[in-house]
Amino acid sequence: MPPDPSIDHRLDDRPENVHVGAWNRDLDPVLSVESGDVVAFECRDAANGHFDAGSTVADLEAMSFEGHPLTGPVRVARAEPGDVLAVEFLDFQHEGFGVSYFYPSAAGKGLLPDEFDEPGLHVWNLEGDVGEFVDGIEVPLAPFPGIAGVAPAAPGDHSTTPPRRVGGNLDVKHLTAGSTLYLPVEVAGALFSVGDCHAAQGDGEVCVTGVEAPMSVTARLTLRPEMEIEQPRFETTGPFAPSGADGTAYATTGVADDLVDASRLAIRHMLDHLQEERGLARPDAYILCSAAVDLKINQVVNDPTWTVSAYLSESLFPESTDAM
Amino acid sequence: MPPDPSIDHRLDDRPENVHVGAWNRDLDPVLSVESGDVVAFECRDAANGHFDAGSTVADLEAMSFEGHPLTGPVRVARAEPGDVLAVEFLDFQHEGFGVSYFYPSAAGKGLLPDEFDEPGLHVWNLEGDVGEFVDGIEVPLAPFPGIAGVAPAAPGDHSTTPPRRVGGNLDVKHLTAGSTLYLPVEVAGALFSVGDCHAAQGDGEVCVTGVEAPMSVTARLTLRPEMEIEQPRFETTGPFAPSGADGTAYATTGVADDLVDASRLAIRHMLDHLQEERGLARPDAYILCSAAVDLKINQVVNDPTWTVSAYLSESLFPESTDAM
Repeated sequence: MPPDPSIDHRLDDRPENVHVGAWNRDLDPVLSVESGDVVAFECRDAANGHFDAGSTVADLEAMSFEGHPLTGPVRVARAEPGDVLAVEFLDFQHEGFGVSYFYPSAAGKGLLPDEFDEPGLHVWNLEGDVGEFVDGIEVPLAPFPGIAGVAPAAPGDHSTTPPRRVGGNLDVKHLTAGSTLYLPVEVAGALFSVGDCHAAQGDGEVCVTGVEAPMSVTARLTLRPEMEIEQPRFETTGPFAPSGADGTAYATTGVADDLVDASRLAIRHMLDHLQEERGLARPDAYILCSAAVDLKINQVVNDPTWTVSAYLSESLFPESTDAM
Repeated sequence: MPPDPSIDHRLDDRPENVHVGAWNRDLDPVLSVESGDVVAFECRDAANGHFDAGSTVADLEAMSFEGHPLTGPVRVARAEPGDVLAVEFLDFQHEGFGVSYFYPSAAGKGLLPDEFDEPGLHVWNLEGDVGEFVDGIEVPLAPFPGIAGVAPAAPGDHSTTPPRRVGGNLDVKHLTAGSTLYLPVEVAGALFSVGDCHAAQGDGEVCVTGVEAPMSVTARLTLRPEMEIEQPRFETTGPFAPSGADGTAYATTGVADDLVDASRLAIRHMLDHLQEERGLARPDAYILCSAAVDLKINQVVNDPTWTVSAYLSESLFPESTDAM
């Protein structure tokens, strides 16, 4: 990357700049910045470089996941507990490669752990603004960090897997370039880390991965001591539909007395649709749902039965294969 | 309404064309149509005409809700259990009036029943494509039927409140003009009814009402015996953001180990935002969330903690009051 005068600091992904699998308030900062500084973070993918463009499902079976590698922590001068850290995402650059995968039933992961006895994997060629899937399907890219957060106040190691009130593995796909994430600071210096970047993801991330990709992330870190928030907030310009504008979507509805069950039903129905009407293999359909299908809560008040729907943009498909 | 040659049948909302509060396979059809016919339904609002443009919260306290009034049921010739009924929504016409309300804590309704001891109500002036809220806030209208469904196979009365596999109170706000809803048929003749129209609604409908409005609904009813579905599906062109296009949204995140709790947190944080940074009274904020804030499931796989965010489009506000 050429020098950019607007970038105040650069953190590459050498081992001493990366912590793997845990948040910990006692980690030594790898960099100290002033409020308002811009930092370019080189971020490893979630699998810590385990995969490459030639990877197959056999490589997934050989992987032992030790938690997410995160670049940081960065100390922000004068940050105190009770402050808010504003993280303005300025730019994301992928490297042309991404991977999506899901684990077999035995692992008990993902929204539908009982659906697939065998694991699945797709290597994405990221070509400009799209990721290439099977059968000519193209997923528009909208890169964001799956994980962005500050250190929790409680001492000791805290897994990078669940998100927390201080952020972390939020997997909010709308934290795209131009968006600003607000995080409640719990420790002096804030201790911000970022990683687990996704080149694209559907709301829900149902198979347990988005389009996982090594990426560089440029962000401005600014203290907002006057703000008070309990959990993360953000400003975003979307995209709110995969095509970036309103277009036709096909949607499947889950009706159930539990929101997770309703989500499961909606995704199962979408797998049926993709398999029966779009001709996808069911494991590919699961990966496509995780990369590009959005779960919306239609209503959560018509006691005792809720509605969740899964939305698939028709714009992903080559025109000649329009179904229904 | 002037005669429209493309409309094959009209059902006004006289008492004999309306059933209130229950689905029942043994209701006599009020109309029989052929597959492909277009029907114009006059639909009462959810409160069965209880409110008008001069209503106040006192009128809410005086209301006894007897269930939703639905126009129908319409028998579709040759429909058999196992078929699918495609309902193509062609047109919605409101009457310039809408109402949103929520019940007091004692009623135990809505996503946040413990937040408000007192009930709340807003009468909307619907002016063309927008509904007028307080402080110059305008909610873009995107009319749809909160309830559209066919009769369940099980005999006896079934409440109109919960949605079912045969549709009903789905409250899918994307069933706008141009969309098509697919419903699994369980009884001979299908017995389709529609009502509970909303001029606008946020995903979640968190306070328990959208912009409730009497409305005329024009729809084409077509049998699709070759389709097989377990629960409703639909095709839609959105809108997927209140402005109909990508624009800036402010979002609040709920992080919790239960999706309903995460939804509650996201909406509570949004109420805080609307109250503290937009100056809305908290009851008004709750109604605005129900009318125009969207709940999205960001991820439901980072065991054991899920992420739900509430999205508020900045386009609702007059430019001069942009917050933050």
